[in-house]
Amino acid sequence: MRIALINPNTTASMTRKMAAAAAAVAAPSTEIDAITATIGPASIEGYYDEALAVPGLLAALRKAEAAGADAAIIGCFDDTGLDAARAMSAIPVLGLCEAALSLASFIAKRISVVTTDARARVPIEELVARHGMAGRVRVRAAGIPVLELENPRSSAVPRLKEEIVQALEADHAEAIVLGCAGMADLAASLQQQFAVPVIDGVVAAVKQAEALVSLGLKTSKRGAYAFPAQKDYAGALFGPMP
Amino acid sequence: MRIALINPNTTASMTRKMAAAAAAVAAPSTEIDAITATIGPASIEGYYDEALAVPGLLAALRKAEAAGADAAIIGCFDDTGLDAARAMSAIPVLGLCEAALSLASFIAKRISVVTTDARARVPIEELVARHGMAGRVRVRAAGIPVLELENPRSSAVPRLKEEIVQALEADHAEAIVLGCAGMADLAASLQQQFAVPVIDGVVAAVKQAEALVSLGLKTSKRGAYAFPAQKDYAGALFGPMP
Amino acid sequence: MRIALINPNTTASMTRKMAAAAAAVAAPSTEIDAITATIGPASIEGYYDEALAVPGLLAALRKAEAAGADAAIIGCFDDTGLDAARAMSAIPVLGLCEAALSLASFIAKRISVVTTDARARVPIEELVARHGMAGRVRVRAAGIPVLELENPRSSAVPRLKEEIVQALEADHAEAIVLGCAGMADLAASLQQQFAVPVIDGVVAAVKQAEALVSLGLKTSKRGAYAFPAQKDYAGALFGPMP
Amino acid sequence: MRIALINPNTTASMTRKMAAAAAAVAAPSTEIDAITATIGPASIEGYYDEALAVPGLLAALRKAEAAGADAAIIGCFDDTGLDAARAMSAIPVLGLCEAALSLASFIAKRISVVTTDARARVPIEELVARHGMAGRVRVRAAGIPVLELENPRSSAVPRLKEEIVQALEADHAEAIVLGCAGMADLAASLQQQFAVPVIDGVVAAVKQAEALVSLGLKTSKRGAYAFPAQKDYAGALFGPMP
Amino acid sequence: MRIALINPNTTASMTRKMAAAAAAVAAPSTEIDAITATIGPASIEGYYDEALAVPGLLAALRKAEAAGADAAIIGCFDDTGLDAARAMSAIPVLGLCEAALSLASFIAKRISVVTTDARARVPIEELVARHGMAGRVRVRAAGIPVLELENPRSSAVPRLKEEIVQALEADHAEAIVLGCAGMADLAASLQQQFAVPVIDGVVAAVKQAEALVSLGLKTSKRGAYAFPAQKDYAGALFGPMP
Amino acid sequence: MRIALINPNTTASMTRKMAAAAAAVAAPSTEIDAITATIGPASIEGYYDEALAVPGLLAALRKAEAAGADAAIIGCFDDTGLDAARAMSAIPVLGLCEAALSLASFIAKRISVVTTDARARVPIEELVARHGMAGRVRVRAAGIPVLELENPRSSAVPRLKEEIVQALEADHAEAIVLGCAGMADLAASLQQQFAVPVIDGVVAAVKQAEALVSLGLKTSKRGAYAFPAQKDYAGALFGPMP
Repeated sequence: MRIALINPNTTASMTRKMAAAAAAVAAPSTEIDAITATIGPASIEGYYDEALAVPGLLAALRKAEAAGADAAIIGCFDDTGLDAARAMSAIPVLGLCEAALSLASFIAKRISVVTTDARARVPIEELVARHGMAGRVRVRAAGIPVLELENPRSSAVPRLKEEIVQALEADHAEAIVLGCAGMADLAASLQQQFAVPVIDGVVAAVKQAEALVSLGLKTSKRGAYAFPAQKDYAGALFGPMP
Repeated sequence: MRIALINPNTTASMTRKMAAAAAAVAAPSTEIDAITATIGPASIEGYYDEALAVPGLLAALRKAEAAGADAAIIGCFDDTGLDAARAMSAIPVLGLCEAALSLASFIAKRISVVTTDARARVPIEELVARHGMAGRVRVRAAGIPVLELENPRSSAVPRLKEEIVQALEADHAEAIVLGCAGMADLAASLQQQFAVPVIDGVVAAVKQAEALVSLGLKTSKRGAYAFPAQKDYAGALFGPMP
Repeated sequence: MRIALINPNTTASMTRKMAAAAAAVAAPSTEIDAITATIGPASIEGYYDEALAVPGLLAALRKAEAAGADAAIIGCFDDTGLDAARAMSAIPVLGLCEAALSLASFIAKRISVVTTDARARVPIEELVARHGMAGRVRVRAAGIPVLELENPRSSAVPRLKEEIVQALEADHAEAIVLGCAGMADLAASLQQQFAVPVIDGVVAAVKQAEALVSLGLKTSKRGAYAFPAQKDYAGALFGPMP
Repeated sequence: MRIALINPNTTASMTRKMAAAAAAVAAPSTEIDAITATIGPASIEGYYDEALAVPGLLAALRKAEAAGADAAIIGCFDDTGLDAARAMSAIPVLGLCEAALSLASFIAKRISVVTTDARARVPIEELVARHGMAGRVRVRAAGIPVLELENPRSSAVPRLKEEIVQALEADHAEAIVLGCAGMADLAASLQQQFAVPVIDGVVAAVKQAEALVSLGLKTSKRGAYAFPAQKDYAGALFGPMP
Repeated sequence: MRIALINPNTTASMTRKMAAAAAAVAAPSTEIDAITATIGPASIEGYYDEALAVPGLLAALRKAEAAGADAAIIGCFDDTGLDAARAMSAIPVLGLCEAALSLASFIAKRISVVTTDARARVPIEELVARHGMAGRVRVRAAGIPVLELENPRSSAVPRLKEEIVQALEADHAEAIVLGCAGMADLAASLQQQFAVPVIDGVVAAVKQAEALVSLGLKTSKRGAYAFPAQKDYAGALFGPMP
Repeated sequence: MRIALINPNTTASMTRKMAAAAAAVAAPSTEIDAITATIGPASIEGYYDEALAVPGLLAALRKAEAAGADAAIIGCFDDTGLDAARAMSAIPVLGLCEAALSLASFIAKRISVVTTDARARVPIEELVARHGMAGRVRVRAAGIPVLELENPRSSAVPRLKEEIVQALEADHAEAIVLGCAGMADLAASLQQQFAVPVIDGVVAAVKQAEALVSLGLKTSKRGAYAFPAQKDYAGALFGPMP
């Protein structure tokens, strides 16, 4: 089984971190192809960055699918471009937020997402609402630029821990979801320190992708995710569907 | 006052239709600058087309804002790229769906949206839910490709009317919202024929844009719509914010 | 175009304030007819006052409509009697709360309403919920009797500003909606001081009324807003519909 | 214990029907004082009639409370003026819709309300939503003017039965709530005929009023139902609170 | 009329407290049969205890029904086993939470439930949501084991009062619902001390049960509460339905 | 890895069917221990059967956990006893409904559950609502007793197919979820016949259980799923937690 892990943040160090996390949990027979998008923002913080990350993501997805990927993961907690990717693809596509929330919902009633930049809080709250979990999930932003997570000397991790403390006390959180793909390396130590489940979206998505592929489940092509109609697409990036 | 009416569907005949509708209702002192995006799908039908339309839309918006637009309208009923556009801009940006639904909510309790292609039904239902109106709005798709609306000999209009009949009878609809920018020329005659308010998003958005500008209201730059952070954007389409 | 701005609070100084705010933003061709209801409470604070304000409001509306008004605005943030007014009238009728929230929703994701008396908080929360915006709007009461806003020496404005500070910090508010018609004169200076959009319902309703009239949209007479049936109405205030 | 049963429909034959239903179920120690409002519409069908019924209702309630009533019931399924009545009174006040729905919720999961005039459907749907029961209650209108229920030769009852059949089959209804005070005499025979619980609001409200009084529970005077503030009330109907 | 008050907590002192509260409010013609379940946990705190309390509860209910009970009350605020009991019985069955919330909803808009053990908070929040009241009810846990309420020297009552103070101030509560059957003896003194309605589920359920019986309303046997199908039930506790 | 698949329906042929489905998709290193509960109903159809199935389920779970299971699955689509099982266990516990819905949500927007007996429809609708998916999931009952699925000569499968046709046409379903553990053997052929994803809860839960175990995620023991407090449990089935 081959899973394409596509990082729509065009920052290779973040991709390497995700790839390591993914490889550590993948089944022996699963191959993780980690791909950094080549078009788009260095980090995705808010609606504007999300929108600009999508074409690069879709280009990478099309290439990965043509090369034989069995499933794809969008390596950003905002589930950037997820619906478009599903409509375009014959293979299943997973987002980090939905994957992490679904696993969290199996082991905890009240959940807090801790994310980075303040611009990301409302978009994630909207995702949570779309997943029907607004009544049991709170979202907190630690006020950390995403790329500070790539800098080992920054104060990002201490600030993240402060938000987790708040989540446990003020939100009655029973589990913590890490709200940024760049936190994939922190889950284990945070889980140990705080003695509650700490869930990273990258590894959650790897296991969900493996689940779908091993069950032979693919994106429905009836209704909202039907393949795009044949038509002209002006400009260079994308032609009509093959 | 100058309002940029940006059609993210890269089909000029549709832009002309919208421009005519907009001009017919604009205040004497309002100038409508109708712009057809040059990158993206000929018509927007579903999630994939929405995603691919956004870069062209944002490029056109940036240009229009630099040229002195006081407000902008995204000429697609799916409110394509709306949040990204707001984050990027200092001027107010309006979507057709939200503008039409808000006017409809002032004159009717139960509302039906009638749209074109079946791929568009669920995305519009999700928009309606995000606007908090799921309890009072139903969405129907007439099974018409968007571009058939550009063809005067097609069966698009009769099929549209059949759905309106269904909406009035089965949904208890008290007003009809036209769920596609390409229907802007049909509102008046449908309103007359069916004796209920029929609301087109293009003209609704023109009046809402005029309202915001004349009241000096601009997109909040605090929180979700804060200007994007400075960072690198890989690839040709967009550099960092100026 | 003639818009009747009917103040259901029977306090003329409040009507003058609203009329000035309305006139300042109305289109050159719009005439604002400001009317103070002659039956009802001096100020509307909570459910009881709302109920007692309605007959005077409807009497004034009927008179204004007969005199040729093209649209009407109910000058109270509680949208007092709005549904009854729409059922009775052939012209569009706007409420301040719905008008302000709709404009706010175009420029901000998270919104706080700041109102006066504590009795008004829950009714406004219920209005917000009916408009489907409970997930993105918080309501705060400054503990100010409405009529203190008419007294320039009161502490009303400082207390109002304290609530705005709380809204920005604790609610993550991105825009402020002024939750009382008597605050119409404060919007501009508050917007400047706090550097976020501050939206007053009176001017919002004027622009929405202009929008509806210029688009030829009237209240649907099918379903919930159908004209009342012919029947006897006991007592002096109202006879059957003409 | 004395319960004032106030009919805001100014039709005495309807009051007599309600009074008979109430008396038949009241506890031996309960006295029902049935009162027909003297100001307002002959029947309440939709928002306009609701609004015009309120002053007469409140006048009757104030008189009944002064005369020693221990609780009051508003004899209209639209729960007309309920919040205003509660704010004004020191005694508990019950509405028919909320009383019937609460009893229905104890004996069935899926419930259908069958009401009269089409104008009443949406207002009742809004009531249901405010009571948090939109997910389990459907509302149907039989297209019957309320006053036809007073006419034994009308086709009102057969049409009502047709809607009940539809509710059982299409809505999977497990219980029927009669959505008009004028149907109070029909509950027993309909329950027998259709072999499902059929709940009338009048008798439900009598038992809920008895419950509140016997438990010493009164309307909270903190927050939304605080007594109105002292102020001027212009016009004849009501002066300031005593 | 005979009402079986079944305490699924297998602690007789708690049953006696409930029985006294029930007897104090029951109508003269109502006989309260208080029954302590003989199988199950000494106190019900959270999901596990709820589940284990159900068989003992159902056994007691079956026996009570066979002995001629006209209605039954489940004496636990978690509404433990309520749906199963209704499906099994021909008589109406009431839960404490639903009974208390329905009475509270008639006299207050914003309500806080104050319960005991932290394990009970989320289950009660879920109950509140199922009753459609999540928007107006907050749940607070005082961190008290249920059985401490049986110990007059414990600090349970002072801690309970602290939570009530918080509820009034931070939640804007207008009424308090006691979230544990073991608090039935405290309602009157708390109501006097805090000058807001304080509602106990036991007495609320007694009056609702009397209401249903006196109106001849029984659990619907159509749909969700249909009698169980005939089949084998392995193990000793229950055989097939008689 | 050892997964206990506990069938709370006390029918061994159903367990064998589930076990075969589970074994067919389990990872090579996963051992499935299929267990038929020895206390409880032969089949679970509605609330009563659910309640009576729980003690047998918990007894089997305790035994399996003591014997070294790494995770457990409750083999019933009603997610019977799920919260109690999680509170009791140190290992993760999965339900069929939640597992199937989460996988379905990754590949389709609009989903229909097709279940057996009409008694199961409302309980499943309530589960769907608790999972926040009421807006995108419809539930249909084919009117089939569960045990007919064990009889190869019954008309169960044709009736099931009729409901799937209805779901695709009337509900716009994009994927089908099989709403009964006894349908585990039908998924593949139905998926082929109807050309949409058809999802069985048993195999979905196996993959989700593998995901949790391989990621080292266990049920949170903070808050709602904290281990039960030490106390007496009267009766034979369960003593205090070890």
